[in-house]
Amino acid sequence: MNRPLPDVQYNFRPGIIELKAGYPDVTLLPAEGLSQAAQVVLEREAFQALLYGAQQGPGCLITQVKQWMEPRENYAVPPEQMLITGGTSQALDMLCQMLTQPGDIVLVQTPTYNLALRLLREYHLDLIPVQSDEEGIIIEELVERLRELEQQGRQPRFLYLVPTFSNPGTLTVPLERRKAVVELAQRYTLRIIEDDAYCDLWYESPPPSSMYSLDPDGVVIHLRSFSKILAPGLRLGWMLASSELIQQCAMRGVFVSGGGANHFTAHVVAAFMELGLLDQHVDTLRARYRERRDILEQALSTDLAETCQWSSPQGGFFLWLQLPESVKSDALVSIAKLEGVSFLPGTLCFVNGGGENFCRLTFTMAPPDELKEGVRRLQKALYHYRKHVSSHHR
Amino acid sequence: MNRPLPDVQYNFRPGIIELKAGYPDVTLLPAEGLSQAAQVVLEREAFQALLYGAQQGPGCLITQVKQWMEPRENYAVPPEQMLITGGTSQALDMLCQMLTQPGDIVLVQTPTYNLALRLLREYHLDLIPVQSDEEGIIIEELVERLRELEQQGRQPRFLYLVPTFSNPGTLTVPLERRKAVVELAQRYTLRIIEDDAYCDLWYESPPPSSMYSLDPDGVVIHLRSFSKILAPGLRLGWMLASSELIQQCAMRGVFVSGGGANHFTAHVVAAFMELGLLDQHVDTLRARYRERRDILEQALSTDLAETCQWSSPQGGFFLWLQLPESVKSDALVSIAKLEGVSFLPGTLCFVNGGGENFCRLTFTMAPPDELKEGVRRLQKALYHYRKHVSSHHR
Repeated sequence: MNRPLPDVQYNFRPGIIELKAGYPDVTLLPAEGLSQAAQVVLEREAFQALLYGAQQGPGCLITQVKQWMEPRENYAVPPEQMLITGGTSQALDMLCQMLTQPGDIVLVQTPTYNLALRLLREYHLDLIPVQSDEEGIIIEELVERLRELEQQGRQPRFLYLVPTFSNPGTLTVPLERRKAVVELAQRYTLRIIEDDAYCDLWYESPPPSSMYSLDPDGVVIHLRSFSKILAPGLRLGWMLASSELIQQCAMRGVFVSGGGANHFTAHVVAAFMELGLLDQHVDTLRARYRERRDILEQALSTDLAETCQWSSPQGGFFLWLQLPESVKSDALVSIAKLEGVSFLPGTLCFVNGGGENFCRLTFTMAPPDELKEGVRRLQKALYHYRKHVSSHHR
Repeated sequence: MNRPLPDVQYNFRPGIIELKAGYPDVTLLPAEGLSQAAQVVLEREAFQALLYGAQQGPGCLITQVKQWMEPRENYAVPPEQMLITGGTSQALDMLCQMLTQPGDIVLVQTPTYNLALRLLREYHLDLIPVQSDEEGIIIEELVERLRELEQQGRQPRFLYLVPTFSNPGTLTVPLERRKAVVELAQRYTLRIIEDDAYCDLWYESPPPSSMYSLDPDGVVIHLRSFSKILAPGLRLGWMLASSELIQQCAMRGVFVSGGGANHFTAHVVAAFMELGLLDQHVDTLRARYRERRDILEQALSTDLAETCQWSSPQGGFFLWLQLPESVKSDALVSIAKLEGVSFLPGTLCFVNGGGENFCRLTFTMAPPDELKEGVRRLQKALYHYRKHVSSHHR
């Protein structure tokens, strides 16, 4: 081997301020608490943690998650409606496998999480975008799509959306809109996959009730993750859905043969929660990330307010920045790289075009100084882009 | 909740001696070593272990596995031909997803691992059994199947087999037969999935070279697992295959979105190996399981030699017991349960019937005294079965 094999996925590039990936601040990863939790597990319950796990996930974690959610989200979480997953990506992959055949229709709120699109496309689905406004998916659009499909005799397999501090748009669907979407889904027997990875990271006030809680044991599949509130390398999350679907998942061959997803880590996280460390950690994240958001917005106000627009993110990891209409963010990427800053171009978040003059900025990963400097570099990149384009048109 | 939710998959039943599941001796699970490894990881490399992992698996584990395999198995293991998996079940599930469509043909050596059959069936494949003799898959049978399919213009997607201390048959395919199978596969461009979960647990002498090593970067996909040599709850294994296929796996949406499989645990196991603990542990397992095998065989010789037949297992977890021809092991299960002993009936290991008078006994899970008592109970069950059947026919 000429160069060492990487341990982590992201290719951190020297000299580049990274505002692209949806990563946490690595200094906030709770290593000490997890180490303590791992010791508790391996001293107290090694037998349970190291044998093949219960297919639905270990009872200890299901119980902890239930106790954690119920007071916060104010509805009962029956254990038979929960499955411990290997993270949202594993869950979404499994649901595609279980619920779709190549050629099936899937509705996707756009803009949406770019890597969910990547995963869905692998299943050779017919992805149909449903546009959103600042309150989430547009009901009239959804109705129209559903009617068209009904007339064609085609039943969409599910609707995928990120309703809370949405990735990339950071909008949050208000309760009334949530109700309207769920009612429509019930009427059309349309499954909703509600990817709620960011709902615990609110910076002003808690988000409205999940769509799942509006129809538990019904049409909504609710995906949650420990990636954003604890650590992405754990590969752990949970899913709430009808007890029938949870049972079907738990009886898949992969779990019957191997036991539940990521069993040992599930025990470690259960112990972490039992020690009361999750509450504390999420509080810290909220405080620190709120600060970062403010710093980013301040920098944008100073350097880019005249040319760009955005809504203040009320939670989550991202700010969705609208560039001047003439700027194509796909082309801006390489100029920004020369200036030493990265971001996600908006086009990656759309199914069939759109988002050309948007970019997604992550404010959770870079430390405050870098956030400010990153915005200055973005400003320079925009300056060079426009100079280049105008000289090109001369 | 009326009764506590289970943490582990297996339903241990009071009064029953468990010879059914392919489980390790729980007293041999290396809790202390794993605790030490987890501490090392979370003190030294928390950043790497807790961020999104490299899609192929973390370099630290790929390097450790390479260093561990090469002197033992005597061939070079290029890192670009390795993927860290979430265990063999995850790997097999992923390969079905990637390589098959409903209705495709898959060849399966029979008898075979019952839960692999369970998993394969979920993909709505046309499973075609290929019989084995005491040296593994019968070459003439395989040739015949391949010719028939070629004439029909149908290409099987892969051949699934467990060539070493086979589950359930405990046979090991000799080198010459391995070569013959690989050559045939090359000629017919047939992929082989070589499930080699047991190859490190040899009790007499190391098994022959893997099929993979006979054609690296070629037709063989080699699956290995930490479940049997370390702990099944870790949900971790590795796969060797052509660098092209490894690359395709690593670029799947689920890994692009979530990072490599089971990343944190992969770091813990890499540290466990780095501390030199795996060698030591596998040596212990071999010594203890060899003892158990001897105890089981001695008990069988004492109590069942007149009515049953078996070959001495040279490795692995199981003994494949041939009952008298008149005995149906499916029916024996419930009588054995009344006597307080469990086993796996042979029929579960066949694709289209067969194995009626076989049963699979696990010798690694129960302690020595229970093994002996288990055999006595099996003898009683057989006695009652035959009495019942003969009274029935009177």
